[in-house]
Amino acid sequence: MSTYQVIEGMIDLPRGFKATGISCGLKKGEGALDLGLIISEVPAAAAAVYTTNMFQAAPLKVTRESIEKEQKIQAVVVNSGNANACTGEQGIEDAKTMGNLVGELFSIPNYYVAVASTGVIGQHLPMDRVQQGIRQLPNHLTEDSGENFSLSIMTTDLIPKKVCVELLIDGEKVTISGTAKGSGMIHPNMATMLGFLTTDAHIDAAFLYNSLKRATDETFNMITVDGDTSTNDMVLVLANGLANNQALDENHSQAEEFYAAFLYVMQELAKKIARDGEGATKLVEVKVQSAATQEDARKVAKAVIGSNLVKTAVYGADANWGRIICAVGYSGVNIDPEKVSVSLGNQQVVEGGFPIPFSEEEATRYLQGEKVDIEIHLNQGDGTAIAWGCDLTYDYIKINASYRT
Amino acid sequence: MSTYQVIEGMIDLPRGFKATGISCGLKKGEGALDLGLIISEVPAAAAAVYTTNMFQAAPLKVTRESIEKEQKIQAVVVNSGNANACTGEQGIEDAKTMGNLVGELFSIPNYYVAVASTGVIGQHLPMDRVQQGIRQLPNHLTEDSGENFSLSIMTTDLIPKKVCVELLIDGEKVTISGTAKGSGMIHPNMATMLGFLTTDAHIDAAFLYNSLKRATDETFNMITVDGDTSTNDMVLVLANGLANNQALDENHSQAEEFYAAFLYVMQELAKKIARDGEGATKLVEVKVQSAATQEDARKVAKAVIGSNLVKTAVYGADANWGRIICAVGYSGVNIDPEKVSVSLGNQQVVEGGFPIPFSEEEATRYLQGEKVDIEIHLNQGDGTAIAWGCDLTYDYIKINASYRT
Repeated sequence: MSTYQVIEGMIDLPRGFKATGISCGLKKGEGALDLGLIISEVPAAAAAVYTTNMFQAAPLKVTRESIEKEQKIQAVVVNSGNANACTGEQGIEDAKTMGNLVGELFSIPNYYVAVASTGVIGQHLPMDRVQQGIRQLPNHLTEDSGENFSLSIMTTDLIPKKVCVELLIDGEKVTISGTAKGSGMIHPNMATMLGFLTTDAHIDAAFLYNSLKRATDETFNMITVDGDTSTNDMVLVLANGLANNQALDENHSQAEEFYAAFLYVMQELAKKIARDGEGATKLVEVKVQSAATQEDARKVAKAVIGSNLVKTAVYGADANWGRIICAVGYSGVNIDPEKVSVSLGNQQVVEGGFPIPFSEEEATRYLQGEKVDIEIHLNQGDGTAIAWGCDLTYDYIKINASYRT
Repeated sequence: MSTYQVIEGMIDLPRGFKATGISCGLKKGEGALDLGLIISEVPAAAAAVYTTNMFQAAPLKVTRESIEKEQKIQAVVVNSGNANACTGEQGIEDAKTMGNLVGELFSIPNYYVAVASTGVIGQHLPMDRVQQGIRQLPNHLTEDSGENFSLSIMTTDLIPKKVCVELLIDGEKVTISGTAKGSGMIHPNMATMLGFLTTDAHIDAAFLYNSLKRATDETFNMITVDGDTSTNDMVLVLANGLANNQALDENHSQAEEFYAAFLYVMQELAKKIARDGEGATKLVEVKVQSAATQEDARKVAKAVIGSNLVKTAVYGADANWGRIICAVGYSGVNIDPEKVSVSLGNQQVVEGGFPIPFSEEEATRYLQGEKVDIEIHLNQGDGTAIAWGCDLTYDYIKINASYRT
């Protein structure tokens, strides 16, 4: 039984946080929001995880350095429309300039400012517009502008993504809020994704980092849109402690309760990213049960969710179980083919590695829905994992055959 | 300088081979060829490589057993339209029945018969039709029916694939011929592919197997269409020795000459499969140079050729070098971003990890061609590799959203 409640709320709902998003002319389209800010009244404990891509974008490097200093962040500045990736020394300078300017405007040390960028890579930021934009940010930090932050970080995303929960820790109300952007180049590990979480919980920095790491492996590292891992992925969490609970660490009696709530926020954001994958019409969830190990379960789940043939079959509402077991078979895991069973929703289609009779009509109807669950039993052990993805559609091709033009 | 000559010719051109293809009603479409046979006058030295998928189709298991017996095969029977995969004990029985019947008809031991199937998985073969078909095969073994064999193994392939070369070994004319089918589920290692090679060369069985293994790693294991590895992949080579050269082994003075010719046939077949990938409009060749090791070069080449984002960009003739270096960055190889350069055809677009000015117009014109070369230098060592693939198009979605229906 969960002890948290899902509530309506933006990234600026936890006590002491404000956020906004404005237009500074980086994205095409009159007035498109492309510059966002989150700020906390007080320095917040901070933790982040980054892309595993060897090409790491400039803002990631700058943010990593800042967090390493004191594990504290007070402000986050993000632009969309330009990823500031593959931009060399100039890119690093530009990311630093963004952080420095925010620091100046809010009178906080520059190493309390995190910087993130998303969009096209290999182009220098038009710093005049960015700086002009940043200077306007303080005027836009009104109540309820958190939604604009979520909008300002979007690229090809169709909808803003936000999740908010609250729970009591030591009798104090603690709020955890998150927002994220997808939506192509989404693949374990991490994605063309940015994720930001804010909470007013009082948390030990090491516990915060460990929670983020652990939850990332179960959420953002288990989603795929197209198998491509981007240069700019980052998930950043800020905890400013204003809820006045006893500092949460692994020995706190409510540590797991907090983690469950935190995990929920991460998981919902991950699912929203998968569902809003480029061109997607459905959310696909692959659950692998009874694998020899959790690692095996994850590999199989990722192989199935990442299969172009499974993704197109789901798009076509074709109960093509053969493609599912095919992906299980090449996942690199030492499975026993004759023990594998597969279900689509409530309908079992494979038992002991062989197809069993099922109603094609019912299966097609099921696959035409907006959420498709594929459940796979390997009957080898206790390992389980869930991965999320989406179907592969004409629109994916359309979006990606002409992204830059 | 190569010592072989590319010539026109089918799988039945090498001395002592005959082949044919007929219709037995497994594929939709009146008269569609779906049953093929290759037969040699005398037992031929045989070697094969098989899919790494844990779900291996019944005919593969049966063929493997037969070859293991004496490393000799005299006849190959292949059907398309039904893969005889995920068909359990019955599937094994059916594959054996196919082999036994061919053995009977041609008075050869059943373990001299290889069996292969390709098509939909999870359905039992309609053995009445298959057996009826097999009984008709001897009557169709006329001259010049080798092309029908190539046609009979096709599934969603658009064109039959064949390559033929000849060279002199010990002054004797040796012919090597090959045919193959793709065209979805194509991924290293191996593919939804069947490949058959015949040669009249006299070859030591171990040398034949080693040549096949070595060439497979450089050819069929370096192509990708959609990242899915099928249950039925097999490449089989028969060498009947009728050219009367001295037995080829690693110590033969022309061993490398023979290998070069053999490799050429495999490579051309691999490229034809990639070019004819489902929905493809172009052949894409990714060449990685100066990697730390050959293994690194292969990993990087496979990551780039397998990227959906690169594939859609190529389809859209968009010189999106960012997606290329992105894929280099997540290939799992420890590259140095600041040493990477990338060219599209003759146009360099990235130098030292950063974009350099290039004519978008020229690049677009280049990418609109039928063959796209992407060359990547890592500047770390001597490792090189080439991978082949194709673009990702609307037609891929169309073909795969409704394959079974």
